[in-house]
Amino acid sequence: MTKGKFITVEGIEGVGKTTNIDFIRKKIDAAGFGCEVTREPGGTPMAEEIRNTLLNNRTEFVCEETELLLMFASRAQHLKQFILPKLSHGDWIVCDRFTDATYAYQGYGRGQSLANIALLENMVQSTFRPDCTILLDAPVEIGLQRAKKRGELDRFEKENIAFFSRVRDGYLELAAKNPHRYRIVDATGAIEEVQQQLSLVIDALIGTP
Amino acid sequence: MTKGKFITVEGIEGVGKTTNIDFIRKKIDAAGFGCEVTREPGGTPMAEEIRNTLLNNRTEFVCEETELLLMFASRAQHLKQFILPKLSHGDWIVCDRFTDATYAYQGYGRGQSLANIALLENMVQSTFRPDCTILLDAPVEIGLQRAKKRGELDRFEKENIAFFSRVRDGYLELAAKNPHRYRIVDATGAIEEVQQQLSLVIDALIGTP
Repeated sequence: MTKGKFITVEGIEGVGKTTNIDFIRKKIDAAGFGCEVTREPGGTPMAEEIRNTLLNNRTEFVCEETELLLMFASRAQHLKQFILPKLSHGDWIVCDRFTDATYAYQGYGRGQSLANIALLENMVQSTFRPDCTILLDAPVEIGLQRAKKRGELDRFEKENIAFFSRVRDGYLELAAKNPHRYRIVDATGAIEEVQQQLSLVIDALIGTP
Repeated sequence: MTKGKFITVEGIEGVGKTTNIDFIRKKIDAAGFGCEVTREPGGTPMAEEIRNTLLNNRTEFVCEETELLLMFASRAQHLKQFILPKLSHGDWIVCDRFTDATYAYQGYGRGQSLANIALLENMVQSTFRPDCTILLDAPVEIGLQRAKKRGELDRFEKENIAFFSRVRDGYLELAAKNPHRYRIVDATGAIEEVQQQLSLVIDALIGTP
């Protein structure tokens, strides 16, 4: 059985992750592969429980280390109990955010230690990395306008423009550092234009053994 | 303002932690210090939420790394939001289990990497360690008999005798490695005998600047 591919979709709020993930899933389905869509933090009942602890609005101040360790706790559970078994079984996985989001949001966004993130990444994932990371990129103002239209913002979405600019720049830096697995898709245009770019990326992945 | 002291109480199930922690608190109170009793995992509303995620009986297999990261996530929150501010304010803290329990249960008991535990300890605590760790020590059979009398056992308490023997041996090894802060109290005898030993330990702590 050929191992499936692990595709992560990254980007700030409002760049169209949900819509485009659905598009990606359909293309993989159409190519005849099993395809599972999942998300981080979350992806198993226990990992979703940890997600709720992370994202709930609360009065208690959430320490940086607490946030980082909860992210990787849910990731460990998601990886070992869902992602790795599915990939071994030949399924492809499209994941709404993964470790790059931790670098972008907690690291570049909040200024937490990138070295600590790398250390936890190695502890939880060993050498496992996505086969392809699709970065849906758009200016912060455009992303946030779209996100606001969807309604109530969670704790992370309530951060300000400066924060999201650091996150976006962080993503672009990660893409520059990992050109072998990153594909940057311009998400500012009409949905048809975005999906035309996505098609090229997915077709190339499907065509690669 | 003189910083308070941080006392941790360790030991396997059924060695009398709860009763003896109450005794320790009263002695510290009587000496005229403010004293807070707390526990791990837990100690703040968010840390208690993480405790529930950890201790609930569930059908989903809990990965070793998930357990370890949740332990340290709740510890980071407890340390920064409760323990350190209270100690700075001059209060003493008596804590039912701390990082030594992670070494003993997850490390020695479950065979998880002691190096990973040390790495997370340094990430979350930097150089912070207890001023004194009291190990209530008793043979596993005696501890488990007492624990069973208390009723329903949680996920950790349901482990078997061999597991608890490794945990006890782990505690004794930690005590041997950290003689400057460890005090071993024989918890097999009558409560009066145990508390006589405890009195000597606490009196010495109160007498030391």
